[in-house]
Amino acid sequence: MEKVILDGQLVATNIKDALKDKVNVLKEKGVTPCLATILVGDDPSSATYVKMKGNACEKVGIKSLRIHLPKETQTDDLLKTIDELNQDDSVHGILLQHPVPAQIDERKAFESIDIRKDVDGVTSRGYGETALGFGKYPSCTPAAIMEIINFYNIPVEGKHAVVVGRSPILGKPVSALLLNADATVTTCHSRTTNLPEIVKQADIVVAAVGKPNFIQGDWIKEGAVILDAGYNKGNIGDVDYDACYEKASAITPVPGGVGPVTISMLLKHTVKSAEETLQN
Amino acid sequence: MEKVILDGQLVATNIKDALKDKVNVLKEKGVTPCLATILVGDDPSSATYVKMKGNACEKVGIKSLRIHLPKETQTDDLLKTIDELNQDDSVHGILLQHPVPAQIDERKAFESIDIRKDVDGVTSRGYGETALGFGKYPSCTPAAIMEIINFYNIPVEGKHAVVVGRSPILGKPVSALLLNADATVTTCHSRTTNLPEIVKQADIVVAAVGKPNFIQGDWIKEGAVILDAGYNKGNIGDVDYDACYEKASAITPVPGGVGPVTISMLLKHTVKSAEETLQN
Repeated sequence: MEKVILDGQLVATNIKDALKDKVNVLKEKGVTPCLATILVGDDPSSATYVKMKGNACEKVGIKSLRIHLPKETQTDDLLKTIDELNQDDSVHGILLQHPVPAQIDERKAFESIDIRKDVDGVTSRGYGETALGFGKYPSCTPAAIMEIINFYNIPVEGKHAVVVGRSPILGKPVSALLLNADATVTTCHSRTTNLPEIVKQADIVVAAVGKPNFIQGDWIKEGAVILDAGYNKGNIGDVDYDACYEKASAITPVPGGVGPVTISMLLKHTVKSAEETLQN
Repeated sequence: MEKVILDGQLVATNIKDALKDKVNVLKEKGVTPCLATILVGDDPSSATYVKMKGNACEKVGIKSLRIHLPKETQTDDLLKTIDELNQDDSVHGILLQHPVPAQIDERKAFESIDIRKDVDGVTSRGYGETALGFGKYPSCTPAAIMEIINFYNIPVEGKHAVVVGRSPILGKPVSALLLNADATVTTCHSRTTNLPEIVKQADIVVAAVGKPNFIQGDWIKEGAVILDAGYNKGNIGDVDYDACYEKASAITPVPGGVGPVTISMLLKHTVKSAEETLQN
């Protein structure tokens, strides 16, 4: 069996090429898709992420509306900004960059995003719709993982997927998406007692722990598919790549795996939201 | 090790006794908790369920507002009724009895229930909040299962829970609740290929499949805890009781297990919703 390196750059390029065409069609109909990004404060990594997302938008023709609020911003001010964007028909997606400064009620801010513009999948309603099987915009990393799986025609139905991690924007929603794709899904986390044994049963492993090189090669069943959503300091994934590569039938590298697809999902959702406004 | 039969009737009685006291306190403060039930059409089982729920309310002092709409009701009429109940400050919980006649968009109707009155846990926002760990009113059968687990001090943290079934009101939310209680959770379903092997790993088995006597004794690990949420024709659960009883350390009977607790969770949520109105 040939080993496949799951090339996120290739998947992302394909998505973006398709999006450029869709954006052109929308523009001919008088609609320019627009993603509003909100950055609160001066955290340098957050500033970098928001900038990357904005630039990625512009490369496919999506308008990037970049809002930068001072670090002293209070919850009510942020809610007011979000509400203005909710009301603004020229805005199709709203992304509030996590984390916000400590004085802000981040959950309340997330929940105030209009479900139709929640292209980053942060509202609990969006999460619920995704888990119940009719969500339009799952959070972007889980959506990226499913996109890679679909691009490479990796069989999911009846397979045992083991997700290591249970964060609200990654472990939980990717478990839900894999379950809806008919996998048998086990969700593991820091309190899981026999993690290596459980991972060893997996046909599909999703690493979403945030610990460098955490998943070991001898935990992997021969022929498993490994999706590494980890991204740790120094471009290191959650998977001990070299050892896991030996066992896997397919594996995402870090960098160049799940990461690049994640941003393209944000763009895809924004374009879809713009398309939806035409249908209403 | 002594074998424990998990007595749902006992758990339910305890909950209801506590609720009576809470209802009295609320009434002294001028608030009578009220659950509105909506029955659409003439399905006899649905009529029976709604009646049981209404009667259970009254037994603990909750007002039961019973709304019966004709079987020809259209979605818009139902939405109007729900909206009136949403606006009505004397109503604290709204239960739309499933299933509704085919011409109605049931999902749209569920979604229109105000999150503060969604005591039956049917909205996708309610589901999302539950899964993300801050939901107030999970759907009632999953909530009942957790209540039994807590009542009998069954350890959950780090245990392997296997849920057989993935319905939106049972398998999915109970998986979410067990995960939030720090179990490692595997969710199985009709496409699961090696079900007996997976169930055999479980410290906690939740049967939520809707097939009489489906879970076999030789699938059960010695000492497992079994919660049977099935309720099939002739008072038969999803678990082959006699064979599974032999293996289990604790097991719910059918009837008298999860069932009675489920209705008391509906009452509990309604009283909690009434209490919340005082806090605002």
